Amino acid sequence: MGLIVQKFGGTSLANAELFHRAAGRCIRAKLEGNKVVVVVSAMGQHTDELVDLAYQITDRPSRREMDQLLSTGEQVSIALMAMAIHHAGHDAISLTGGQVGLRTDKSFGRARIREITERNRILEHLNKGSIVIVAGFQGVDEALNITTLGRGGSDTTAVALAASLGADVCEIYTDVDGIYSADPRIVPDARQLQYIFYDEMLELASLGAQVMHSRSIELAKNYGVTMHVRSSFSERKGTDIVRESSDLQQVIVRGAALKKGLARVELVGAPNRPGIASEIFRRVAEHGVIVDDIIQVIHKGASTADISFTVDKADVESIRALHAEFAREMPGMNMEVRDNLAKVSVVGVGMRTHTGVAGRMFEALHRANVNIENISTSEIVISCVVSADDGDKALRAVHTAFELDHSPAGA
Amino acid sequence: MGLIVQKFGGTSLANAELFHRAAGRCIRAKLEGNKVVVVVSAMGQHTDELVDLAYQITDRPSRREMDQLLSTGEQVSIALMAMAIHHAGHDAISLTGGQVGLRTDKSFGRARIREITERNRILEHLNKGSIVIVAGFQGVDEALNITTLGRGGSDTTAVALAASLGADVCEIYTDVDGIYSADPRIVPDARQLQYIFYDEMLELASLGAQVMHSRSIELAKNYGVTMHVRSSFSERKGTDIVRESSDLQQVIVRGAALKKGLARVELVGAPNRPGIASEIFRRVAEHGVIVDDIIQVIHKGASTADISFTVDKADVESIRALHAEFAREMPGMNMEVRDNLAKVSVVGVGMRTHTGVAGRMFEALHRANVNIENISTSEIVISCVVSADDGDKALRAVHTAFELDHSPAGA
Repeated sequence: MGLIVQKFGGTSLANAELFHRAAGRCIRAKLEGNKVVVVVSAMGQHTDELVDLAYQITDRPSRREMDQLLSTGEQVSIALMAMAIHHAGHDAISLTGGQVGLRTDKSFGRARIREITERNRILEHLNKGSIVIVAGFQGVDEALNITTLGRGGSDTTAVALAASLGADVCEIYTDVDGIYSADPRIVPDARQLQYIFYDEMLELASLGAQVMHSRSIELAKNYGVTMHVRSSFSERKGTDIVRESSDLQQVIVRGAALKKGLARVELVGAPNRPGIASEIFRRVAEHGVIVDDIIQVIHKGASTADISFTVDKADVESIRALHAEFAREMPGMNMEVRDNLAKVSVVGVGMRTHTGVAGRMFEALHRANVNIENISTSEIVISCVVSADDGDKALRAVHTAFELDHSPAGA
Repeated sequence: MGLIVQKFGGTSLANAELFHRAAGRCIRAKLEGNKVVVVVSAMGQHTDELVDLAYQITDRPSRREMDQLLSTGEQVSIALMAMAIHHAGHDAISLTGGQVGLRTDKSFGRARIREITERNRILEHLNKGSIVIVAGFQGVDEALNITTLGRGGSDTTAVALAASLGADVCEIYTDVDGIYSADPRIVPDARQLQYIFYDEMLELASLGAQVMHSRSIELAKNYGVTMHVRSSFSERKGTDIVRESSDLQQVIVRGAALKKGLARVELVGAPNRPGIASEIFRRVAEHGVIVDDIIQVIHKGASTADISFTVDKADVESIRALHAEFAREMPGMNMEVRDNLAKVSVVGVGMRTHTGVAGRMFEALHRANVNIENISTSEIVISCVVSADDGDKALRAVHTAFELDHSPAGA
């Protein structure tokens, strides 16, 4: 007898038949002796339709009103899910973010969860034998304004509830079978992982693996919630996202990822004075641009430095605008942009204790005739920036070099 | 400087253009120096679409989940209305029924308002210069379950807010110009009324005039809220619904109404024993059937009585089922149904002090060659049941007989 949180995404709830199918899963878990909490997203394209309605009215909708609007999508889903469970003859009750007391800060559109105040209300319903259905993605601030949690928000709701209720597992039902050693659309022999550690999943999510968003994983890590990512469209077991443990094998490389659509910006001839990098990147951040892989080269004896960094291709225009500002203050500094780049990365907690991973990666890329533009490493990641045209080939080469298509025992 | 509550129905909010038009009205009232509270219904056909979604899932949706679902319709509208007002450069904030603390009883689908707890929150926003937009039709019970108020619920929300805030007027924007002396689709020379008293409006609403539902009028009467019913599609002044006052002319007949789709049920040979009528009508009520115009005829010296009553045509099947039950207990009692009837009525508070109204009505129907099947009267109403085929003709005859096409001074 356990407590399970199940989360169903929008593609798993696109029509009435899919609601009945999802309801069947919840009921099965219940009949197996579990208490079941279900978190749902808005149906299929519903959120997009609501966004479209807003933009029919105005091209700059307020964030507060946008949250008031978008939160109705999940509210529709919880009611329909409760009806689907009732239809099958089982007890269920739907609750909005506000009704479970999912309190957030006031950051409309990207609020962070602070606490869940109505934990006892949920437990009461569970103890009476009801399946409790909670609206994902939404909460309320102190003044009961409705907030939303941003991308991947329903996963975050599910993990927060699992943490608050001490659930045994938080199951994420989605349209893929689980987490793969690499994107199977690019790497045909990519393998579904049986499990992955939180830190590995966090890195892969930020490096281009799009199955999960980082925030829910962070929360799961902080509270030790075991997540299980699996498909709503098959009975296959998915992938566990778990805490590191000596019972589980630490492979050196768990997975590889490819992030496309990158650009490299080079500021050539920046004044070589203290604080210049800090000033430039403060102002880059003010323009809302996220930067990684910064390289600063100071030419020996010269009064200028070259600074290069990688950004999302979509942010290049913001950077150009910023350069125009800089041009007045630092007349000698020129900007060069190369915008057809990609980044291939390998991730694994085993790198903490093993050496030679970088060499093996460089060799694989060299053999595949891929030129490396840039290298960055962290404790459990090695990344190489390559030409966008070489991206897929690079990912396949790295995947093969680390034998990710072979299953290590138990992983 | 006053406080105005404006309510916009679904037909006034069917698309983006209409939202901007409604927003324009709110802003104008604001610029004229008023504090403005706006109550909105769900957009056009939105509620029907939500109902349809529910019935795709199950043919017997729970009332609680139906309310959870339907309340999203008004929540979408408040957000879009706030965006439309922002777009025009004015401050506005949207609030759900829960956010204004509109507390109701637990009767899902037809809840009654108990109090508005967040009156001060509304006033704070008004004092800061915001237009406050409140979701109609919805509230929350003590446990914060979402409830809906049933048909005409947004009008009720508007009147309740007007009462709570001490508004000067509650304006109801709809798709007709106001209240008419009779339905202008049937009576071409029907005249728009400048004002009508609460009791007159209450009777007309229950007798077939479909512009307003009774509950909002009752609430307006209890709290002395002046209502003004007018079109969102024109600048014409509408009709005030007001408290009786010696300043305003008491006409004998204010308006006439026609209720179609009635049936008369005759129970012939019911046992003539004490309590039989009470037993029959208790069980009729248990079947959810609303009855008016009961006639009981006891034949002199006989052991049986004939009981006839009028019901909605749609309820005839329920009555037939009930008769089958009765047949076992009262074997001699037969049932006859005549289901093609209509009821024509005249209403006016002046009837309290004037006689001869009934005679004038009967004469008008007689001259129009309309046979009267049944007559009922109350303090300010006289109704005649006639054949459905004669209904329109009867309404026109009565409208002419009481000179309702002529405007009395000031009315």
